[in-house]
Amino acid sequence: MRVIFNEELKAVADDLDHMAQLVRTAITLAGDSLIDGDIDAAQRVIDGDIEIDALESSIIDQCVRLLAKQNPVATDLRVVVASMRLASTFERMGDLARHIAEASRRTYPECPVPAGAKPLFGKMRDFLNMTADRLVSMLMDRDAAVAESIITDDDTLDKLHHQTFEFALSDDWSGTNQQLIDVVLIGRFMERLGDHAVSAARRVVYIVSGFDPSKEPQRDEGTDID
Amino acid sequence: MRVIFNEELKAVADDLDHMAQLVRTAITLAGDSLIDGDIDAAQRVIDGDIEIDALESSIIDQCVRLLAKQNPVATDLRVVVASMRLASTFERMGDLARHIAEASRRTYPECPVPAGAKPLFGKMRDFLNMTADRLVSMLMDRDAAVAESIITDDDTLDKLHHQTFEFALSDDWSGTNQQLIDVVLIGRFMERLGDHAVSAARRVVYIVSGFDPSKEPQRDEGTDID
Repeated sequence: MRVIFNEELKAVADDLDHMAQLVRTAITLAGDSLIDGDIDAAQRVIDGDIEIDALESSIIDQCVRLLAKQNPVATDLRVVVASMRLASTFERMGDLARHIAEASRRTYPECPVPAGAKPLFGKMRDFLNMTADRLVSMLMDRDAAVAESIITDDDTLDKLHHQTFEFALSDDWSGTNQQLIDVVLIGRFMERLGDHAVSAARRVVYIVSGFDPSKEPQRDEGTDID
Repeated sequence: MRVIFNEELKAVADDLDHMAQLVRTAITLAGDSLIDGDIDAAQRVIDGDIEIDALESSIIDQCVRLLAKQNPVATDLRVVVASMRLASTFERMGDLARHIAEASRRTYPECPVPAGAKPLFGKMRDFLNMTADRLVSMLMDRDAAVAESIITDDDTLDKLHHQTFEFALSDDWSGTNQQLIDVVLIGRFMERLGDHAVSAARRVVYIVSGFDPSKEPQRDEGTDID
């Protein structure tokens, strides 16, 4: 029984690793579509989201079967429950990457955000690419230290996001209303990608250490501009 | 054993009912703060969010204990897993209501959206109040028909949300950039409240009927303005 459980849990862990890699690819390509005007990248994110959605369903089904057949307790149970929640977080990250790609495709060959805002969005893209790499290695290595770095560094993204609002409200802004809408929406999607990465990192800390950092005060800050 | 399980599951169901009521209150008060400039309502939403967060934690802990001790299978297991996911959805709805209240508080005594956009936001508020009532009765009565109505009617909210963009891009727009930022962000928060209500309704349909409507193509549409 124990052997079967470990095998089945291993299959879930492998699927989560795969999902993290797909999410990393989606984030990287969404950034390429936004900053480099790469329309093929945009289309790949949009088309690829269905695979991420399917993996979420599959992981949750596997976990439910595991719970029914194996009745895991203690650490094993915690791992199964956290795995389901991780899968849902990754699914949502795929959606957000898709939204960025859709906005980039809509304005192609123009960039959805005006030239003056592009350096800021470029920095956010770089930050999210680093976070996406960390997500994958945190999962592959079950590395709580990498997870902690995701949690700690998210402030950087929030500050960049805040600066997009400052730019939009400054005298330097000369964009259209459509561009302002895109600055706000795309900025929000990128900020939420960071929030979800933090939430995923907390689940991995929980799996690895048994300590639940989500019991600390909720994040999702930096949302409002005051 | 069976008796204990049902008792414990009943406690989870009661907490979910209570959570739905708190979310309804948060949505209603957030709408009052936005449309009626009710600063006390805004503060109540902001202060009350901590209770919603605590209920999510408590429900998930109860469900994990249930899984460990009672090893539910079949329908019971499905109910436990769906309950955990419902609690997370409600928690997120509390956050979104709080974001709306925070924006309203920031601009008090002014409304964050300009006068011309207010009728549209008023309609979105009315829609969300109706949805919040439905959420509560869907949970209390385990009523799949009410849940289905939430799923079906969400298009109405998406259309209203779309109209806020049309207004912002029309010649009738004369607001500031700050107001446009708020129109986009608050519109997004309201649209997401609708999406999460749909997701909650799908989980209730799943609990009641065993059919999982989330296996249909993902929603979260109407996000992008094309």
